[in-house]
Amino acid sequence: MTTTSPLLLPPIAIPGQDANTVSTPALLVDLDAFEYNIHHMATLAHHHGVALRPHAKAHKSSAVALAQLAQGATGICCQKLSEVYPFLNAGVKDIFISNQFVGEAKVAMAIELAHHVKLSVCVDHPAQVEALGKAANKAGVSITVLPEVDIGHGRCGVPNAEALLALADCIAGYHSLRFGGIQAYHGGIQHLSDWDDRKQAASRATAMTQAFIQALESRGIRCPTVTGGGTGTVEFDAASGVYTEIQPGTYVFMDDHYGTNGWGGELRLRQSLFIASTIMSTCKPGRAVCDGGLKGVAVDSGLPRVSQTAGGDRFRYIAANDEHGILTITQNETEDGRVDPLGERIRLIPGHCDPTCNLYGEYVGIRNGIVECVCNIDARGLSQ
Amino acid sequence: MTTTSPLLLPPIAIPGQDANTVSTPALLVDLDAFEYNIHHMATLAHHHGVALRPHAKAHKSSAVALAQLAQGATGICCQKLSEVYPFLNAGVKDIFISNQFVGEAKVAMAIELAHHVKLSVCVDHPAQVEALGKAANKAGVSITVLPEVDIGHGRCGVPNAEALLALADCIAGYHSLRFGGIQAYHGGIQHLSDWDDRKQAASRATAMTQAFIQALESRGIRCPTVTGGGTGTVEFDAASGVYTEIQPGTYVFMDDHYGTNGWGGELRLRQSLFIASTIMSTCKPGRAVCDGGLKGVAVDSGLPRVSQTAGGDRFRYIAANDEHGILTITQNETEDGRVDPLGERIRLIPGHCDPTCNLYGEYVGIRNGIVECVCNIDARGLSQ
Repeated sequence: MTTTSPLLLPPIAIPGQDANTVSTPALLVDLDAFEYNIHHMATLAHHHGVALRPHAKAHKSSAVALAQLAQGATGICCQKLSEVYPFLNAGVKDIFISNQFVGEAKVAMAIELAHHVKLSVCVDHPAQVEALGKAANKAGVSITVLPEVDIGHGRCGVPNAEALLALADCIAGYHSLRFGGIQAYHGGIQHLSDWDDRKQAASRATAMTQAFIQALESRGIRCPTVTGGGTGTVEFDAASGVYTEIQPGTYVFMDDHYGTNGWGGELRLRQSLFIASTIMSTCKPGRAVCDGGLKGVAVDSGLPRVSQTAGGDRFRYIAANDEHGILTITQNETEDGRVDPLGERIRLIPGHCDPTCNLYGEYVGIRNGIVECVCNIDARGLSQ
Repeated sequence: MTTTSPLLLPPIAIPGQDANTVSTPALLVDLDAFEYNIHHMATLAHHHGVALRPHAKAHKSSAVALAQLAQGATGICCQKLSEVYPFLNAGVKDIFISNQFVGEAKVAMAIELAHHVKLSVCVDHPAQVEALGKAANKAGVSITVLPEVDIGHGRCGVPNAEALLALADCIAGYHSLRFGGIQAYHGGIQHLSDWDDRKQAASRATAMTQAFIQALESRGIRCPTVTGGGTGTVEFDAASGVYTEIQPGTYVFMDDHYGTNGWGGELRLRQSLFIASTIMSTCKPGRAVCDGGLKGVAVDSGLPRVSQTAGGDRFRYIAANDEHGILTITQNETEDGRVDPLGERIRLIPGHCDPTCNLYGEYVGIRNGIVECVCNIDARGLSQ
């Protein structure tokens, strides 16, 4: 270890800088589109009389959460307990963990968080309730618990009313725990590309949600919150009369997976997230190599697409290596011969925004071609 | 923003802790296997009289780099300029950027780094040399430049001797730049699973490397360093008599992609990297859901495999969602009926270690079932 002070990385961008000079790869956020999306979703929720609790797993940034709350969001969802820390520290008061957790370390984290934030959590097994209830009773904290019900996704969530009622009974056995309603999310239908198919699938899922609510009511258990809905189904869920709260995440940014969905209803979102990338090698005719690879863009939901207005007319992204993106040049000839694109900048639309954002330390907010702000992705990598 | 001091995340692990109580998902490093791999590769390089310059893009951690240097590595490779900062700050003196970069911000970064570390870089285009040479002349720093040659990979690197000689001439035009030799890496053959096929492919690639060296020599240009070789071909490259330096990265940890390669020669590496994960939902018969999903394990080279000694006899990983890993239970019945695995811990072997390590903030080093150390992944996310 040297004894001198460390050499600091230069800042990724500075407000006022030309957006086309930001060092790459970088996550750019078109602030006009971003603000439009936040306002549009808040308006949709307000119009249908449902609460909006955006999912912070998509953006992992307290700055984004505060922007959502400023437009009327009632709180946020996190998917992991460790994600809560930066949001809590930034002043978010009401956080729902829309996911199950088990183990002593996790229960201890939940108890600590419940001392500092209005915490609600998700369960689907009596053992989860028992571990949390015992610890919360002992610590003297109050936690709201929402059993998850499986409405067709087949991942987490109790499969039937009997199991749901057993969980409600279990929750009632701990004075520190409060039954808050149910979590009913069907991830599998969010990306059905045909809008009518998606609407029908959401309708079937909502009918299953309603059956769970009725089973609770028939036992005299009121269900104050019915929460769920992702960006793909949220317009149906909000209008269903069944959900009281929606939890979309991707809508702030959008991605190519959601962007290629059909959108036949009232929801019209804009792509606000782009990966700025630079072509740094051009040795092979018809090919170019850019600096956005697997460590700069998640490929689980398909390769990124080159934005039509920022290189998409001339380049196609065909393969991702660790630090290299391989492009074919679809239009690189002039009458005088080859045009060498070395140093050209392109913008990529990621296939899947959530794991892509999780790769970066900052968002670079741009407007009219100028950097306006740089925001920390302060929950990046917090997967516990 | 609250005015009170922030609530800090609990430490991921504490030395002395039982490894089976570390909060999940977490990157565990089996220190016996890790130290064996480092020593084994250093011995191989020493035996063949080649320099070992491990690639830090695999582990992104200065603690790991220092362990490699302590065993005789001559320096490290980085793939990006921004990666250099933490290694430089930790005391690494000799760093080779085995990749191309373009643009003012990048050139400025290279110049700054060259003031603090023995920097060598890779080029494959005269424009890269010119931009760097002008800036280095002006700044009064010295940078060693190694043109990359394409030995069959078809990604970066000059395609022929003529282009290589033109680059050497271009480098000679700047007093601040020194021609250091060539970078000759064929990523495409690293994962040929049959050992003999891989050996033959490496032999063909080495013949192409040799032809480039001869073209330089025929012009009277000596080639002090011939560097390349990944974990898959390094035993052939080291023994080739052509390479003077090898740059494997994955060997410290291994992954399932390399692990399923055939290994018929002197190289025998051990899997040292595991993702500890916990089963947190078990609502569906025959299925279990663990807490290691897309944000905890890269899936670009296939899904993770459940380690045979830590759940692999009973679970198979079949799908990754953002924060969920879906497992089938291959053996969950006793004579008395279903055994509920909720809360069970498993260990996953990632398909691809490089982008997996890039998702985490720390390595948890374990030995004999006890946590021995926690090391920062201080170059995590530095992709510029």
